Amino acid sequence: MTEGWSKKIYVELLPPTEDDNRSDSERILDGLKEREDLKDERIRFSPSVLRRFYQVCEKAQWNITITLGFDGTGWEILDVEAGDTKEEHYGLCTDLGSTTIVMELVDMNRSEAVARETIFNPQTAFGEDILTRIFYTKDNEENREELRRATVSGFCELMEKLEKKTGINVKKCAAMVVAGNTAMIHFLFGMDAFCVFHTPYAVHTLKPDVCHAREIDIPMEGFLYCCPGKANYLGGDIISGIIAEDITEREEISVFLDIGTNGELVIGNRNFLIAGAGAAGPALEGGVVKTGMRAEKGAVDRLIIENGEIKIHTIGEERAEGICGSGIVDLLAQLFLNGWMDLRGELQENRSDRIRRQGQEMAVEYAEGLYFYQSDIEEFLKTKAAAATMVEYMMQTMGMTMDEIDRFYVCGAFGTHISKEAGVTIGLYPDIDREKIISPGNTSLAGARKILLHREKKEKAEEILENMEYIQFGSVEDFLHLMTAAMAVPHTDYQRYPSVMKELKKRERPHL
Amino acid sequence: MTEGWSKKIYVELLPPTEDDNRSDSERILDGLKEREDLKDERIRFSPSVLRRFYQVCEKAQWNITITLGFDGTGWEILDVEAGDTKEEHYGLCTDLGSTTIVMELVDMNRSEAVARETIFNPQTAFGEDILTRIFYTKDNEENREELRRATVSGFCELMEKLEKKTGINVKKCAAMVVAGNTAMIHFLFGMDAFCVFHTPYAVHTLKPDVCHAREIDIPMEGFLYCCPGKANYLGGDIISGIIAEDITEREEISVFLDIGTNGELVIGNRNFLIAGAGAAGPALEGGVVKTGMRAEKGAVDRLIIENGEIKIHTIGEERAEGICGSGIVDLLAQLFLNGWMDLRGELQENRSDRIRRQGQEMAVEYAEGLYFYQSDIEEFLKTKAAAATMVEYMMQTMGMTMDEIDRFYVCGAFGTHISKEAGVTIGLYPDIDREKIISPGNTSLAGARKILLHREKKEKAEEILENMEYIQFGSVEDFLHLMTAAMAVPHTDYQRYPSVMKELKKRERPHL
Repeated sequence: MTEGWSKKIYVELLPPTEDDNRSDSERILDGLKEREDLKDERIRFSPSVLRRFYQVCEKAQWNITITLGFDGTGWEILDVEAGDTKEEHYGLCTDLGSTTIVMELVDMNRSEAVARETIFNPQTAFGEDILTRIFYTKDNEENREELRRATVSGFCELMEKLEKKTGINVKKCAAMVVAGNTAMIHFLFGMDAFCVFHTPYAVHTLKPDVCHAREIDIPMEGFLYCCPGKANYLGGDIISGIIAEDITEREEISVFLDIGTNGELVIGNRNFLIAGAGAAGPALEGGVVKTGMRAEKGAVDRLIIENGEIKIHTIGEERAEGICGSGIVDLLAQLFLNGWMDLRGELQENRSDRIRRQGQEMAVEYAEGLYFYQSDIEEFLKTKAAAATMVEYMMQTMGMTMDEIDRFYVCGAFGTHISKEAGVTIGLYPDIDREKIISPGNTSLAGARKILLHREKKEKAEEILENMEYIQFGSVEDFLHLMTAAMAVPHTDYQRYPSVMKELKKRERPHL
Repeated sequence: MTEGWSKKIYVELLPPTEDDNRSDSERILDGLKEREDLKDERIRFSPSVLRRFYQVCEKAQWNITITLGFDGTGWEILDVEAGDTKEEHYGLCTDLGSTTIVMELVDMNRSEAVARETIFNPQTAFGEDILTRIFYTKDNEENREELRRATVSGFCELMEKLEKKTGINVKKCAAMVVAGNTAMIHFLFGMDAFCVFHTPYAVHTLKPDVCHAREIDIPMEGFLYCCPGKANYLGGDIISGIIAEDITEREEISVFLDIGTNGELVIGNRNFLIAGAGAAGPALEGGVVKTGMRAEKGAVDRLIIENGEIKIHTIGEERAEGICGSGIVDLLAQLFLNGWMDLRGELQENRSDRIRRQGQEMAVEYAEGLYFYQSDIEEFLKTKAAAATMVEYMMQTMGMTMDEIDRFYVCGAFGTHISKEAGVTIGLYPDIDREKIISPGNTSLAGARKILLHREKKEKAEEILENMEYIQFGSVEDFLHLMTAAMAVPHTDYQRYPSVMKELKKRERPHL
């Protein structure tokens, strides 16, 4: 029996007679109230169901299936169908990312996704990065509405794709759970998101209430719940991820690092939870790299230097057009391990003819005609330093060492694709057991699915917000100082990276 | 402090700072939760308010007025306005009658109506009487929708009239309470009402849940609550009336008789409540009388026979065009007291030249060229007998006598206009102290207003339904037998009407 945001219940009721002429709505409510799971619950008929349910009851001789949607505190009857249709019971969960939106159709009976679709967020028409979108909509109601409609159109498109793929009428879903960062949720509801990036960082809302999907123009009969956020930079997508990975359920301590447009970090277990966020994103995804690109066809995603030669792999095994995040991490790790780049990130011209001056600066030709520049390296190392320093700073704050970490989650597409080994080599990840480094994929979506299937996770989310301590790294004084030390490869304090040192030694490049 | 279905609350909140950067929605909720009356309440932001409230807060430097609407169990924030606008706090209550719809705009601060408007129910375009409308919509979704739209258009028209009259934006009302009979509520929600008049009289619903007015296309921001009904013939209009008159609050016993399209009767006090309904309406309102008409200009509404002459009064003092309910009761009482009609209701040709054969039957010319026929008298007496018998039967069932009655309410327009004395004379009312006979007017509307101003009356209504015993007169065997006895004027058992006997004696018409 699912404990999700919706229920489908088959009942065989006795038709009205002169001796029992309760009203039809009462008959159904009485029938539902006989159930253990509903006897103390508030149940409401929506006017649109009221208008037609009795016809179904009559035709089906009162053998009917009732769909109930959870409104956050009680239930609403969203549909009455003839016969037993319990088998067809679906819900939706959505990861509303700034780059992509991912939606899953979930079989509520089997507690599993039956289909998943991904599209680029239509908001990108108004700006590749969030800041552009924010300035587009700031103090401009019309543009804000335009962006809102674009967001909604994305949901509609995904629903249509899912419907087409499965043949299931997704409009009849009684519930959708959405996880997204704070700016995305602002856009979804049509709010100005300037507050997200502007002091004093008091956003308009972190917890939109459960609403009818149609209240925000999403063509679905049921309710929509957004996983709540903690702060401007720590949104519902992260809370959702924490729920996905059960971080607050275990005694063991987890580090949860999500690198996307921003870097978000959570450390904790069942007893404590500390979180922070910082600007640590775009560079890692190739955003500020000159030949950087998304992980699409033609992107270099794997790279190794063997016998003085750079060997690449591209997505789709097509001609290289640029390099994506995982390729960059491989590249830097390989440059470093082969001595083509020193610990400060400087390219060593004498080490290979692939390294040469290109225009104003040094660069490495990682594929034919494609260069990775000295300035790209610096940008990238700055970002990896920011990410690593967030972890370091927070560990220090807690008086903890890396030994105490049982799981080091690297979420998102970035974490999924980069090689753990290369991540450790460049000092993006700490030098811990590789098994402890986990790439759980899209935890935002996984959390949304989990919440959809277990509505008590709504309380869990609120509890997480309640217990979580939030650090604004921007306001931490010695953060920059720590970050400078972390800009070296793997780190100024190389003792922290024994496995990297061992590898260098093996390669007879003691590097000290 | 009103305890109504809406609240307007003025708060002066501190704007966000770096030290206190709670989200805007949280800031408002925290502000509200500080209040004694809201601290344990569920409060929700509607998405439409979420989209814009923060702009108001900013502009008004957080000196804002929040409008809360009650959804039946919790509150929804329906509006956020700049400054203190508590003074403008209004709600709506509606009596949805089958002939007329009456709506009042209520000042929630002063607990009083500021304006009232009445229109003919636009449903009449689809049938003067309810049955015609029911057959028009039966098994025909399109016609049902047409009737629903007509009903809604009536609400809209009334709202516009109220707005025009008062200059108050009624669309901003946070609550509307509607009282109507079961068929009317079915039509309002777009349901087939055939069930109301058809065995086994299991209607589709007696208790529509509180809904957003817009869910049924009424252009108002807040919630709509319909006073619940007890049975097919005993609707929310009667429950509303019981609440209006506090019948269940007193030790004294009341008889509550509502004569409209149907006759509905309730007898009770704080300890018991018994109710029933029967076909007792149209004839009394002049419906089946050949020259009968509504209480409009030109209708004979008062009549007396003096010195062998009929003297009439018409509404608007215009030329007589027909006769309305109160005129009929006066006419019959006067015919009887003057011996122009005997106790069986037969016109006495020899008593006046106003009484003569007209076509197939005897008739009295009550105004120039206007006749009241023998068959009209019979129809009317049948109906008055039905009404009187309902009371008699119910009193017998309870083992009570008329002496025990403290208040005999005759509700509705009919009760308001007919003369008590004439009502007793023809045996429509029992022969009790005239002071005990009360014409409270539109109790359906008064009850709706009371519920609007005191939301705990919602529970009171449910309690009334719970405790009320309902009798279907149609299924009572000796009802017809009792009714036959009650068809005499004032009654076959004339001992029950001592005051009428006394009057006859005074007129030297002992009539026995």
